[in-house]
Amino acid sequence: MADIEIICIGNELLIGKIQNTNAYWLSKQATQLGVIVQRVTVIRDVVEEIAKTILQTAERKPPFIITTGGLGPTFDDKTLEGIAKALNCPLKVNEEALEMVKEKSLAYLKKHGVTTFELTKPRVKMATLPVEATPVNNPFGTAPAVRVNLNGTVLFALPGVPSEVEAIFTQTIAPLLIQAAKGAGFFEKSLFVQGISESALAPLIDRAMADNKNVYIKSHPTGYLGNKPHIELHLTITSTSEQNAKGILDRSAEQISSLIVENGGKVSC
Amino acid sequence: MADIEIICIGNELLIGKIQNTNAYWLSKQATQLGVIVQRVTVIRDVVEEIAKTILQTAERKPPFIITTGGLGPTFDDKTLEGIAKALNCPLKVNEEALEMVKEKSLAYLKKHGVTTFELTKPRVKMATLPVEATPVNNPFGTAPAVRVNLNGTVLFALPGVPSEVEAIFTQTIAPLLIQAAKGAGFFEKSLFVQGISESALAPLIDRAMADNKNVYIKSHPTGYLGNKPHIELHLTITSTSEQNAKGILDRSAEQISSLIVENGGKVSC
Repeated sequence: MADIEIICIGNELLIGKIQNTNAYWLSKQATQLGVIVQRVTVIRDVVEEIAKTILQTAERKPPFIITTGGLGPTFDDKTLEGIAKALNCPLKVNEEALEMVKEKSLAYLKKHGVTTFELTKPRVKMATLPVEATPVNNPFGTAPAVRVNLNGTVLFALPGVPSEVEAIFTQTIAPLLIQAAKGAGFFEKSLFVQGISESALAPLIDRAMADNKNVYIKSHPTGYLGNKPHIELHLTITSTSEQNAKGILDRSAEQISSLIVENGGKVSC
Repeated sequence: MADIEIICIGNELLIGKIQNTNAYWLSKQATQLGVIVQRVTVIRDVVEEIAKTILQTAERKPPFIITTGGLGPTFDDKTLEGIAKALNCPLKVNEEALEMVKEKSLAYLKKHGVTTFELTKPRVKMATLPVEATPVNNPFGTAPAVRVNLNGTVLFALPGVPSEVEAIFTQTIAPLLIQAAKGAGFFEKSLFVQGISESALAPLIDRAMADNKNVYIKSHPTGYLGNKPHIELHLTITSTSEQNAKGILDRSAEQISSLIVENGGKVSC
């Protein structure tokens, strides 16, 4: 089973300015591709913090790390500097990246009827990569993404704009994760339970999990309907056989449903 | 300035099952109270991971740590075991916590016309705390929150249900953060910019920040309106003087607005 860790960089995520939808979207996608997301770390726009966090993450040896944010042209975009510090290598203008920035900037200016183009400092900044890094095409934005190796871990640095994250992940990263997952897939089933408390449910979950190995059953209290508690039971399994996985999920769901009804609860799908 | 770190525990956050709304809500609240959120770490329901992450977080010596999730009655609720491992102290039934669990369970059962009450294993589990921990009242749920000291860092372990997180934070944690912030507050202002690219904006931001110390100006590309880029400029400052802070924000916003207009862009509030 292949692991991945996600590092999200940006003060805006830590001041409650925006929801971390990138971490949510990437976690869902990687999981659905049969990869295990081990951790998400959210840090501020501070070079030293970025470098330290990348090194600590790489020490856990996940095959993949994805970072989001901090690749743009402004002063607070510090991810490339952080990666260079982690790798202990210099930053240098990368010709391939510079071509990407030029092409995207020109296309953008042309669209707005601007005919002059200047390779300004902020534009060159987006093409100034750690010397060990390779630029990765960003179909929807000016700043290229970046790929780098860290003692066997492949790190992809993506921008922070969700549409760009999604496009680069789908185009470049997803095929590698599918390969790493070696045919594994993620399968799930939800049951909605009423009229029984989470404490009363606990031993029933234990029994159903003991009888159906590899299924993970998690209870999520979702509030009250009237004065009755409402709990979602989420059954999941990561497996290389869809047929086996679905069979196990069905058997497990049937068993726990029976146990809940025997104990005075109600179950719906 | 007081720092805080947030640790969110739960596989559901790493498989893309649910959005991490707790991290978002807590970050926003703490920031508004004048406290700096340094990091959010999201990890799986694994005792060893919980213990390690707590110890690594405590090494950075933030005055406060908040954890969310993993205090319930089911097998996958492992936060208390993780804290005990981090503290290297045993778990033991806490009489005060047991009273809380009893009281909440009885109230719940009474509401549903159930007259028998049994102190089942899952109920006792919620009151089995690291011996160094103190239970904290949970106004909306059965599982008490927990408070513990880690070499000068105050750690609060909260449940994962958002309504319970919000109630416990407001009742117990917010007053301590206000005290630690020593009168600091967080002030912000947004400007919406059109017709200028982020690269062209970068040097204008640099100038406005150099001229108005302590203001942090961050650009957030928010997509396109027609084929024109739309960028939010978010100006923020943490200060003990509301009047000063607002004056600086206003001056800074005026200056950058003028610079943008001079460079062919449009600004609205």
